[in-house]
Amino acid sequence: MFEKEYDVIVVGGGHAGAEATAAAANMGSSTLLVTMNLQTIGQMSCNPAMGGIAKGQIVREIDALGGYSGIVTDKSAIQFKMLNKSKGPAMWSPRAQNDRMRFAEEWRMALENTPNADFYQEMVNGLLIEGDKVVGVKTSLGLEIRAKSVVLTNGTFLNGLIHIGEKQLGGGRAGEKAATGITEQLVDLGFDSGRMKTGTPPRVDGRSLDYSKMIVQPGDDQPEKFSYLDTPILQVQRDCHMTHTSELVHNLLREGFERSPMFNGRIKSIGPRYCPSIEDKINRFADKDSHQIFVEPEGWDTVEMYVNGFSTSLPEDVQYKALKSVKGFEHVKFFRPGYAIEYDYFPPTQLKHTLETKLVSNLYFAGQINGTTGYEEAASQGLMAGINAHLKINEKEPFILKRDEAYIGVLVDDLITKGTEEPYRMFTSRAEYRTLLRQDNADLRLTPKGYEIGLAKEERLKRMEEKMSKSDSFVHFFKKTSFTTDEINPILESLDSSLVKQSDKLFKVFSRPKVTMDHMLQLDSVSEFVKENELDSEVLEQAEIQVKYSGYIAKEKTNADKLQRLESVRIPDNFDYSKLKSLSYEAREKLESIQPVTISQASRISGVSPADISVLLVYLGR
Amino acid sequence: MFEKEYDVIVVGGGHAGAEATAAAANMGSSTLLVTMNLQTIGQMSCNPAMGGIAKGQIVREIDALGGYSGIVTDKSAIQFKMLNKSKGPAMWSPRAQNDRMRFAEEWRMALENTPNADFYQEMVNGLLIEGDKVVGVKTSLGLEIRAKSVVLTNGTFLNGLIHIGEKQLGGGRAGEKAATGITEQLVDLGFDSGRMKTGTPPRVDGRSLDYSKMIVQPGDDQPEKFSYLDTPILQVQRDCHMTHTSELVHNLLREGFERSPMFNGRIKSIGPRYCPSIEDKINRFADKDSHQIFVEPEGWDTVEMYVNGFSTSLPEDVQYKALKSVKGFEHVKFFRPGYAIEYDYFPPTQLKHTLETKLVSNLYFAGQINGTTGYEEAASQGLMAGINAHLKINEKEPFILKRDEAYIGVLVDDLITKGTEEPYRMFTSRAEYRTLLRQDNADLRLTPKGYEIGLAKEERLKRMEEKMSKSDSFVHFFKKTSFTTDEINPILESLDSSLVKQSDKLFKVFSRPKVTMDHMLQLDSVSEFVKENELDSEVLEQAEIQVKYSGYIAKEKTNADKLQRLESVRIPDNFDYSKLKSLSYEAREKLESIQPVTISQASRISGVSPADISVLLVYLGR
Repeated sequence: MFEKEYDVIVVGGGHAGAEATAAAANMGSSTLLVTMNLQTIGQMSCNPAMGGIAKGQIVREIDALGGYSGIVTDKSAIQFKMLNKSKGPAMWSPRAQNDRMRFAEEWRMALENTPNADFYQEMVNGLLIEGDKVVGVKTSLGLEIRAKSVVLTNGTFLNGLIHIGEKQLGGGRAGEKAATGITEQLVDLGFDSGRMKTGTPPRVDGRSLDYSKMIVQPGDDQPEKFSYLDTPILQVQRDCHMTHTSELVHNLLREGFERSPMFNGRIKSIGPRYCPSIEDKINRFADKDSHQIFVEPEGWDTVEMYVNGFSTSLPEDVQYKALKSVKGFEHVKFFRPGYAIEYDYFPPTQLKHTLETKLVSNLYFAGQINGTTGYEEAASQGLMAGINAHLKINEKEPFILKRDEAYIGVLVDDLITKGTEEPYRMFTSRAEYRTLLRQDNADLRLTPKGYEIGLAKEERLKRMEEKMSKSDSFVHFFKKTSFTTDEINPILESLDSSLVKQSDKLFKVFSRPKVTMDHMLQLDSVSEFVKENELDSEVLEQAEIQVKYSGYIAKEKTNADKLQRLESVRIPDNFDYSKLKSLSYEAREKLESIQPVTISQASRISGVSPADISVLLVYLGR
Repeated sequence: MFEKEYDVIVVGGGHAGAEATAAAANMGSSTLLVTMNLQTIGQMSCNPAMGGIAKGQIVREIDALGGYSGIVTDKSAIQFKMLNKSKGPAMWSPRAQNDRMRFAEEWRMALENTPNADFYQEMVNGLLIEGDKVVGVKTSLGLEIRAKSVVLTNGTFLNGLIHIGEKQLGGGRAGEKAATGITEQLVDLGFDSGRMKTGTPPRVDGRSLDYSKMIVQPGDDQPEKFSYLDTPILQVQRDCHMTHTSELVHNLLREGFERSPMFNGRIKSIGPRYCPSIEDKINRFADKDSHQIFVEPEGWDTVEMYVNGFSTSLPEDVQYKALKSVKGFEHVKFFRPGYAIEYDYFPPTQLKHTLETKLVSNLYFAGQINGTTGYEEAASQGLMAGINAHLKINEKEPFILKRDEAYIGVLVDDLITKGTEEPYRMFTSRAEYRTLLRQDNADLRLTPKGYEIGLAKEERLKRMEEKMSKSDSFVHFFKKTSFTTDEINPILESLDSSLVKQSDKLFKVFSRPKVTMDHMLQLDSVSEFVKENELDSEVLEQAEIQVKYSGYIAKEKTNADKLQRLESVRIPDNFDYSKLKSLSYEAREKLESIQPVTISQASRISGVSPADISVLLVYLGR
């Protein structure tokens, strides 16, 4: 049936699988997406939102490289917010609420319009392996489909087990079947596997809620967007609403604790620390008598609502009783209860930086199968796996992002170097150089790279280059143009900033903390320059950040460059650590297992001390 | 969790379940739709089309009564055709191709916008029974939800078993779980159950097809629509394409016959005779060396195509090899193979005319669970079950349509009187009075009834009344207005129809076979009347039919009225047939099992002879 050998087979059609398919196909690989259900491609299994702190930056990075998540998000958004706008630009994080149906439809259409991308609906329950190499997949009907490489993005489906109170049922998602066979085969091949847990809150009928008792959460007055391409900006937005749990709600929940799979030992695996269930929050923060609940619409028109903050695996009657006591939820009607799900993952230290497994050549893992949580984390891994699968079979250099180049670089390096024992989520704090890794400059950082490997199209590069040249010339304008005291002092006075006595360059006064681009635009010279050069809001933002944060940015660049030197000390492949007797036992074991590629990566392995690094450096002749 | 008792619980969200929910809720019953997956409400599980011969009439009837299928079809249509337009108006049958995603979305939105309709996602695997009465449902999580009545619309999900070649997998639809528990409980309660089979063709990638080798199948130049309300008429349409199988294709398929579950005895249940698999067609019509294949798009934008005419459960490699030899399919890529599915049904002679079960009070069955096939058949049963569930709990008269009132009446009467041993599909030939049961007059026939029971809204009634009064006055105009020989003879001459020698009423010449409304409109008096009275195309069509077919219609009305007399001879409830010794053994057994309500219904039971009817009539004093 499948006569031809595909270049790449992607198993799974979620965020990781969809990006992997798009990337490999767009780079020119014949790619087959195999999924249990073609109607659930691009599903938002949990909350109807993309982005957020650090995650929004990842979506921008995916977009800058030529991935689709940003475009799909923009086309299906119902609300947009730039989070942390009051903090420095390193913290600015775009976030969108999405229409769940539209999101999936946009993904499906994007993939259907991708040349080289084929589709097939069936459960994959095994891999074809020859020697130490994957050469295809087997389906539940016994079909064998051959490929030069395979990307596994099974999400929560591998031996998925759903828990609600005392009840358990097999399934990959509510109402969907679990997938079997793959874990067992991989373990036979020598892979370590583990179990993780995640959860989702109830979905409820918006018609049964009293929004007058909640706080409206509108989108930004001037919504922005994710993609650097020409996607639409929201003209109308849909509101979210906020409410709170109370001591009464907590007590009602506690009554169900002994029937909770989280507390009676039935669930042994670890859930996402920073996206805990409501019972977890009550248990861990016993002194807090209230937690926030966000009511997020599942789309433009639907009455279905996502109860963000109320993820739970308590029995459904306990969920109901407790939620009914939340302000505004007095008459709540459930569409479905929350639940927890346990699934198989493979500790990601078994992967190379390309997301290829160390044990089986041309086999890549991306998404929750690597122990991560979050759409954005999954999508970015899918993208990187798809890119590297394509590059390897074409005998090209692997595509690896460094920690000072992208959150995606931090994510992959963290995973494969440190592993993770609980669902891994991205935070700005995980990035050493977050002043460099901003949402505003993902295109400047990554689009040239995406273009070079043949993923980002020329239009993308041109837009980026125009943005860069315009913002550079604008910064240059501030450096060379002088103000008069007459025009600047009234502005400074209004800001309660000390007045200037003599004329100077604009750059100098613009660097003052209280002075913003809006103030600069009050000056005729500035506003004329903007008009003449047709500078848009992205260029203005970029120039403002370059001026106001130039000190921080320069300093972080220097730091990054310094560390770059350690990064350049490579450790030979299959290095024999047993020769180095002075390494600690733990360090030797970890180094042998993780096989770091550079001294810098070795230094990030937990259990490898600075003393161990010195031993290594001496041996390597440094 | 469900503190309140619902009036009606509907199990299943397909065509039957959706109509049942809408009907009961719109009539004022608090209604809960419980489905395994809220995202699959209103799925077109098989072909992306609504209507067709006899089926299109049913959709018009559903619409006339106040159901939603017509509206949903119109809003999601991508192509419209009035079939059989060259035959008499009794045969005219509307058919639409639909965007599968849009169709489901429109259904979901329609239901969400229905007050009194609630939703819950979970598998129902049991009924709550008290005495001989249903009082609610049990879910797979052990939840009990109470209701005054329950409508089961389980489709192909009850113990669904999918067959592809030698392989079998449990499932209610490709990629979806089967439902268990309900059959077993009903059998314990004394119900007879059986197995039926249906099938679906492969879905393929439209990008892999060569349409230049096929015949374009466009929609009508002037597309009409289903709903009598103000739904949109298609401005743009998407084409279908036709191609053919060949002797080579048949031979390739035959090579797989020994691996076919249809022929090696693995599938024992009977499939739909008039929607056979391709292997069935080859087998039964061995002399035919070609069968038609229609390529139907699954939506406006998607590349997914439905291969109508190629339903099959042969092994996927055989499907592929054979389909590749069909003209235009040389490079076909499969999205998923065709398959057969076996599922439980309950012989419908166990139901009353209201679709309530005889054994368990307030329990209704609708759709494939009754042994029918087809979206339209299912939807109409759902509508009738929803209506009657509401009426019964409100102690109102049941709503039963007679055989001369609606195809829906024929359908229900056939099912409960004759039962069915193979999937039951509607045909015009099943209706004794098909000249009365036309697609153009479903509103005239049924909207007053729909309004009377509180389902059709006033707007619907007003539109119907306006259409009726306008077409009546137009018919009256033809009867009273005379033509001049000067104006009519040129028209008659152009039609090669004998000329008239003297003036007469328009009605007379309009009754001639070759003379159509278009010819009449060439007369100034007619076109002026149309303009003055603002008659639209529906009124013109209605008046034309009333004039040209008045003889047939009147004759069929007389026949129907005659039979109506037998229909009015009621048989008392729980009539003791054992008293009538002169009944044949077979007749007594069937009459006891089916418990017909009237002599007319008794006469339609197979095995009940005219002699048996005479015995009954004599006993009942006629």
